[in-house]
Amino acid sequence: MKAPTIGLAPLPSLLVESAVAAALAEDLGLIGDITSNATIPEEARAQGVIASRKAGVVSGVQLAHAAFRQLDPGCRFDVVADDGARVKAGDVVARIAGNARAVLSAERVALNYMGRMSGIATLTRQYVDAVAGTKVRIVDTRKTTPGLRAFEKYAVRCGGGHNHRTGLFDAVLIKDNHIVAAGGVEQAVAAARQTAGHMVKIEVEIDTLDQLDTVLKYSVDAVLLDNMTTAQLKEAVKRIDGRCLAEASGGVNLDTVGAIAKTGVDLISVGALTHSAPVLDLGLDFSAQSTKRTLTA
Amino acid sequence: MKAPTIGLAPLPSLLVESAVAAALAEDLGLIGDITSNATIPEEARAQGVIASRKAGVVSGVQLAHAAFRQLDPGCRFDVVADDGARVKAGDVVARIAGNARAVLSAERVALNYMGRMSGIATLTRQYVDAVAGTKVRIVDTRKTTPGLRAFEKYAVRCGGGHNHRTGLFDAVLIKDNHIVAAGGVEQAVAAARQTAGHMVKIEVEIDTLDQLDTVLKYSVDAVLLDNMTTAQLKEAVKRIDGRCLAEASGGVNLDTVGAIAKTGVDLISVGALTHSAPVLDLGLDFSAQSTKRTLTA
Amino acid sequence: MKAPTIGLAPLPSLLVESAVAAALAEDLGLIGDITSNATIPEEARAQGVIASRKAGVVSGVQLAHAAFRQLDPGCRFDVVADDGARVKAGDVVARIAGNARAVLSAERVALNYMGRMSGIATLTRQYVDAVAGTKVRIVDTRKTTPGLRAFEKYAVRCGGGHNHRTGLFDAVLIKDNHIVAAGGVEQAVAAARQTAGHMVKIEVEIDTLDQLDTVLKYSVDAVLLDNMTTAQLKEAVKRIDGRCLAEASGGVNLDTVGAIAKTGVDLISVGALTHSAPVLDLGLDFSAQSTKRTLTA
Amino acid sequence: MKAPTIGLAPLPSLLVESAVAAALAEDLGLIGDITSNATIPEEARAQGVIASRKAGVVSGVQLAHAAFRQLDPGCRFDVVADDGARVKAGDVVARIAGNARAVLSAERVALNYMGRMSGIATLTRQYVDAVAGTKVRIVDTRKTTPGLRAFEKYAVRCGGGHNHRTGLFDAVLIKDNHIVAAGGVEQAVAAARQTAGHMVKIEVEIDTLDQLDTVLKYSVDAVLLDNMTTAQLKEAVKRIDGRCLAEASGGVNLDTVGAIAKTGVDLISVGALTHSAPVLDLGLDFSAQSTKRTLTA
Amino acid sequence: MKAPTIGLAPLPSLLVESAVAAALAEDLGLIGDITSNATIPEEARAQGVIASRKAGVVSGVQLAHAAFRQLDPGCRFDVVADDGARVKAGDVVARIAGNARAVLSAERVALNYMGRMSGIATLTRQYVDAVAGTKVRIVDTRKTTPGLRAFEKYAVRCGGGHNHRTGLFDAVLIKDNHIVAAGGVEQAVAAARQTAGHMVKIEVEIDTLDQLDTVLKYSVDAVLLDNMTTAQLKEAVKRIDGRCLAEASGGVNLDTVGAIAKTGVDLISVGALTHSAPVLDLGLDFSAQSTKRTLTA
Amino acid sequence: MKAPTIGLAPLPSLLVESAVAAALAEDLGLIGDITSNATIPEEARAQGVIASRKAGVVSGVQLAHAAFRQLDPGCRFDVVADDGARVKAGDVVARIAGNARAVLSAERVALNYMGRMSGIATLTRQYVDAVAGTKVRIVDTRKTTPGLRAFEKYAVRCGGGHNHRTGLFDAVLIKDNHIVAAGGVEQAVAAARQTAGHMVKIEVEIDTLDQLDTVLKYSVDAVLLDNMTTAQLKEAVKRIDGRCLAEASGGVNLDTVGAIAKTGVDLISVGALTHSAPVLDLGLDFSAQSTKRTLTA
Repeated sequence: MKAPTIGLAPLPSLLVESAVAAALAEDLGLIGDITSNATIPEEARAQGVIASRKAGVVSGVQLAHAAFRQLDPGCRFDVVADDGARVKAGDVVARIAGNARAVLSAERVALNYMGRMSGIATLTRQYVDAVAGTKVRIVDTRKTTPGLRAFEKYAVRCGGGHNHRTGLFDAVLIKDNHIVAAGGVEQAVAAARQTAGHMVKIEVEIDTLDQLDTVLKYSVDAVLLDNMTTAQLKEAVKRIDGRCLAEASGGVNLDTVGAIAKTGVDLISVGALTHSAPVLDLGLDFSAQSTKRTLTA
Repeated sequence: MKAPTIGLAPLPSLLVESAVAAALAEDLGLIGDITSNATIPEEARAQGVIASRKAGVVSGVQLAHAAFRQLDPGCRFDVVADDGARVKAGDVVARIAGNARAVLSAERVALNYMGRMSGIATLTRQYVDAVAGTKVRIVDTRKTTPGLRAFEKYAVRCGGGHNHRTGLFDAVLIKDNHIVAAGGVEQAVAAARQTAGHMVKIEVEIDTLDQLDTVLKYSVDAVLLDNMTTAQLKEAVKRIDGRCLAEASGGVNLDTVGAIAKTGVDLISVGALTHSAPVLDLGLDFSAQSTKRTLTA
Repeated sequence: MKAPTIGLAPLPSLLVESAVAAALAEDLGLIGDITSNATIPEEARAQGVIASRKAGVVSGVQLAHAAFRQLDPGCRFDVVADDGARVKAGDVVARIAGNARAVLSAERVALNYMGRMSGIATLTRQYVDAVAGTKVRIVDTRKTTPGLRAFEKYAVRCGGGHNHRTGLFDAVLIKDNHIVAAGGVEQAVAAARQTAGHMVKIEVEIDTLDQLDTVLKYSVDAVLLDNMTTAQLKEAVKRIDGRCLAEASGGVNLDTVGAIAKTGVDLISVGALTHSAPVLDLGLDFSAQSTKRTLTA
Repeated sequence: MKAPTIGLAPLPSLLVESAVAAALAEDLGLIGDITSNATIPEEARAQGVIASRKAGVVSGVQLAHAAFRQLDPGCRFDVVADDGARVKAGDVVARIAGNARAVLSAERVALNYMGRMSGIATLTRQYVDAVAGTKVRIVDTRKTTPGLRAFEKYAVRCGGGHNHRTGLFDAVLIKDNHIVAAGGVEQAVAAARQTAGHMVKIEVEIDTLDQLDTVLKYSVDAVLLDNMTTAQLKEAVKRIDGRCLAEASGGVNLDTVGAIAKTGVDLISVGALTHSAPVLDLGLDFSAQSTKRTLTA
Repeated sequence: MKAPTIGLAPLPSLLVESAVAAALAEDLGLIGDITSNATIPEEARAQGVIASRKAGVVSGVQLAHAAFRQLDPGCRFDVVADDGARVKAGDVVARIAGNARAVLSAERVALNYMGRMSGIATLTRQYVDAVAGTKVRIVDTRKTTPGLRAFEKYAVRCGGGHNHRTGLFDAVLIKDNHIVAAGGVEQAVAAARQTAGHMVKIEVEIDTLDQLDTVLKYSVDAVLLDNMTTAQLKEAVKRIDGRCLAEASGGVNLDTVGAIAKTGVDLISVGALTHSAPVLDLGLDFSAQSTKRTLTA
Repeated sequence: MKAPTIGLAPLPSLLVESAVAAALAEDLGLIGDITSNATIPEEARAQGVIASRKAGVVSGVQLAHAAFRQLDPGCRFDVVADDGARVKAGDVVARIAGNARAVLSAERVALNYMGRMSGIATLTRQYVDAVAGTKVRIVDTRKTTPGLRAFEKYAVRCGGGHNHRTGLFDAVLIKDNHIVAAGGVEQAVAAARQTAGHMVKIEVEIDTLDQLDTVLKYSVDAVLLDNMTTAQLKEAVKRIDGRCLAEASGGVNLDTVGAIAKTGVDLISVGALTHSAPVLDLGLDFSAQSTKRTLTA
């Protein structure tokens, strides 16, 4: 008996449509694409391919499609490499055919979304690949671009990563300040357990092994082991002994992540996935005849 | 007689307030910061400093302030290093004092904005410094994060860079597809001049020196010299001879920008400023007593 | 050592302000309160008390205050019985003094919010009181008024209840359809565990004790025991034996909830808390001189 | 000669679509329905019926349809019992067939709207039936859920009731405070007549028969007879003698409404219609094969 | 005994603030006022007066104030000639003092609102004056600028006019198409009376005296006498004999309105008030020292 | 070789759809078109033509279409005289056929947009015709209706005019206050050139020929010659001698514009185009059978 292979679930379409509409409005302003409107006949057609200039992982196809469709509801958009797919330099990601002005006017919004999201997916995939063979999950943080958290966390999933909590509202993460204010770990955990819903998990951030011993007394769901050496992490995993999840953070990069994974932690969170991933270089290449006037125009 | 020293103009406050409100809503959801609400007394106070962990250029102080103020209208926020200032690792950017829950709940939004914007300002400043002594302007592109263009273009200005057009609506940039569709450079430029307003400038993108000769016949405001060698750029500048602005793009990085600047071009546009700048690592360090209960609480 | 007594955390103020603004706009339309504007001098003052006509539990003081303040930023609003407080018939909840037109125009919005929220808090408190002396938590469901979930879940907290998941996004609740589609409980749980974040809890809904035995094999965080008799619930609690949380639902009312609580379940979820609570009858009683003109007007 | 039978007019579709979009966003958050997305194949189909568990009157079919359609534009939704129809326990209200994830994700929003609206329609119908044979109209009040007034007033119409004024802007209702502030009934009515548009009706609320005599001097469109005994109401109707509409309010419930109707008043307003109607229990029952994978998936 | 003199009620402030914010955003875009930001020191102060270049009636002071205040919360704005006041050419309407950039950036939005609204108030006042000495009300229509109805109907009130219905929702106006579709006047009126709320008035538009006789059988609240001669209007008024309001429309201009008023109709509706009023020419005159740098800057 | 004839580019559709939705919401409120809903059977059909009562130039067809389509997605809308076309009194602009209620409910919004926009296009065309045979462009100003700038500037284009800058953000226009604050023309121009992007043009407003001589030293893109006599304008054009664009403003009306054009200026800006254009009188004439019930209803 085997679970069905469930693909990556698409983003809620309402989020996609409203975000893309806002992005197009930002670029078109009150007057529109004055260059294309001046030079391209209203009925001209264009076709081309979105191709990757570099190797990477695709993310954001849904947003790119929405950008073109919002400006030309009748456009054709065929996905060649869907979200989560690995591409090599030169690989085609999607084919687009539609009204020439619409395609050119939507191009930058489509690529801005896809480039950023694919950049995140690509970097995530590098981390995930670097810990292959271990049970570790690479997870994101709340260090996302304001307003784009849904898309950036989705991009992490496209790269094979997993999501940490969505925001301040869906999981408890007790840090040093909370402990001080509450009067101690015990009090902080008790207060969180008392006020949070029963479906909310509780994690505590600690810096030292001594703190870990204290925390383990209060049966939390996870501990965040911040800025520990691999030796400390190993010792922490040993002391935790499966009683809760162990998450490592701090000092994580592609050089160190493999060793950290081998300490036996369950999770490694990497802020850089969303705050410092370079864009994946994607371009829209038009077919030769692309913007010629159509005969019927 | 000398022009007054005009500082960097602040962002329109309406943009700042509505963006920050949306970002806070994204992080707080329907329930709020369940950790701080559970562990920190409602009247507790916190104070701390936003400090930079790395050398860089500050940008986004206005948004950070708004984030704290929106959650605690009575908070105190003192700017130490304002937008555009260079900071060293460890330097304080701002001091914050206010309601402890509010400060902790707004922290991530404040840092997410400032980190990203300061990252852009920092990278821009590196490019600007690399062309110091020339007349060249480092300019941005439309390769910005959807929804954040105003803030990212502002961050470029904080780094000493300048802005290219804001969007598709405020300047004409004629590319290959437009020329093909219009039937030639002459027709494209004529059409743009005819339909665009008289306060709108016209730039034409070209790949070869031959194209340049053609374009120069039609008195445009600028030419975008794409992916040319420094030798080609020098020749282009010579042929242009001050008749319009010369902008170089393509293949620009911190190693090449100096040489490109010396070709005599007026402008070098760098997509990476906004699409691939790593975050500037900023943190909020709380004072020791910060989240203790106040006596009056 | 004791955790600090943390009061009920207030609602995110941005949610409150925008909801109240929309509600006032709904009532004022494009023309405003034509009765008050026609009959009450612009500078007249009014003062009065919001009092409860029935015994109950208060909720929504923050929204009532916002309604008056949005129409008269200088109004005075003193809370006598804060959210969560029990009141008897006749008890004063808050005192309001301000511009007479503003107070009258905001009255209905203030009372509509408070009446509904206090109605939910009151009903919740009845359930909570009915299970006093047990460890059971009374929890809400997603059967809330569209658009008002944040406020209704808050009202449940005001009544001493706790919140189940906020929406479809922050916890997994596997029901019959999901199990059928996934090919079995094992597959459904495995799939959820694989795709959901590590801070997300998993609950499975079951109808029979046989199903319970199956579910318990896959270490979930909670089981939802739907429409079981108290005998079945007792047996279920016994079989679960502390391995996960036990939630009872279905057939719960004020007559049955006590017996259900005694079965040893951890949680009892009650849809009626938010979908069928009658309003708590609150009124605004004006002082005798209230809407007279002020001498200074 | 007879007026055409005009059915209940549908709600403005723009209101429906935007409200449903907001409700779905509230439930789906930034991540979506994590349970369905994890367990149900993307292309699986589901079909089922919305059925009533109790006798009642249907309202909100349009909103339920919008919820399913917004998540699956290609879904099929067949209305069996349209808005305003009476249903018995077990009766089918609508049939839905569509993408399985979409149907499950939209289910709660659809039912939350329909349950509440049908609850209002059902309660309204009970009042309307209780006054059958009289000329009395059962009318609503402004005691509606903030943000849902359009839908709740529509639900009242579905139950055979009628609407009082929509808000503070479309009719004048002079209460005690207005009279005191204006300096008397005469002044209040005169001021309202002078400032309000000629298409705006004027009603005055009174508590005593003496006040009625005063009000009747100033030819208003309606008087609101608040908290009067049936004897007083009869006397009031006699004194009014058709010169204006007579509305009774206060102390109205299903036991008293019949007697109040027999006093000869034209209107009986009932706040409980919208502020305290219990939900009509509706459920979505899936067909046996419903969420199986389709062969083509 | 006399009603208090109630001034013109201000516009709902929420409408004003959100409209002004949108208008400022439209003018400032993503970059702001690049001219003022470049040339005026950040701390410079400006002061000046809004003066009228022509005789007219003021409307929109509230919106002008909001424009300046939104850009400079600390600005000073003193109203000299409030909404509804008559001004001569050269008269000062308001004095403004504040941050120089803010004043210059908000100037156009402030004047655009006030100019248009004062233009409407001025034209309305001309019509009102032209019927002075009669009982006639000059009323507006639904021929308003989309999105500005609240402000334009308010401007009509500032000019001494009155408002017809706000929109399609708050009064019934039966025109020829409705009568044809319903099967006759009787059916149309009966249907409207049956479905509309009891606080909703009913008006019927007619073109001939024959139609009038038919309509008068069904006791409506008003008849709209469209495009009739003054002789026809006189006859219509005679036949109506006070049984309902008589409204004249069509062919109304400043030359004809006096004669129409003398026919005895109650109301004359004039579409031109809102669809064709020329702007009242208002300007912002700066004091000599206005934009000098302050010493403290 | 000839540029393709590029028609007037349509408005960005996102702008159109959201503006029309807001305008319909303004007119329909929470209840809808109570007259049509009461009198017209739900399935009845209507057809008619939008015709012009006066000669003029059409603008806004796209918005009218959107109004009808938003209320009846299946309606048929055939454009006879597209935007920019000249029509005579009686000419048909478009034919509409659709659901009768939808057509009647959308009629006023459609005509309100088209009437206003066609009024602007018509007035613009009069100015453009009055300068026919010269090279002058008639251009608009920022004196537009708040919130409608995109549509009004488009209407100017429909009338053969051209657009000045869109807002404060896309071009520099240095006026007297800026010069005073900056310390002189030289400083103001230098500051603007330094801070504005390289694609931004700079214009300076002057009142005297002396000022012109000063401005010409600093190579600006345009000068705005305000309130000059035609003699002064001629002299100014002579002194400018093609070094920048010359724009005349002030005292421009249909009597004077021809003479001003002959002075040789490049541009004449006319605030009245957008702030004082009377509406073009358009009406919707229904076919005889239009609102009859359909047989299938």
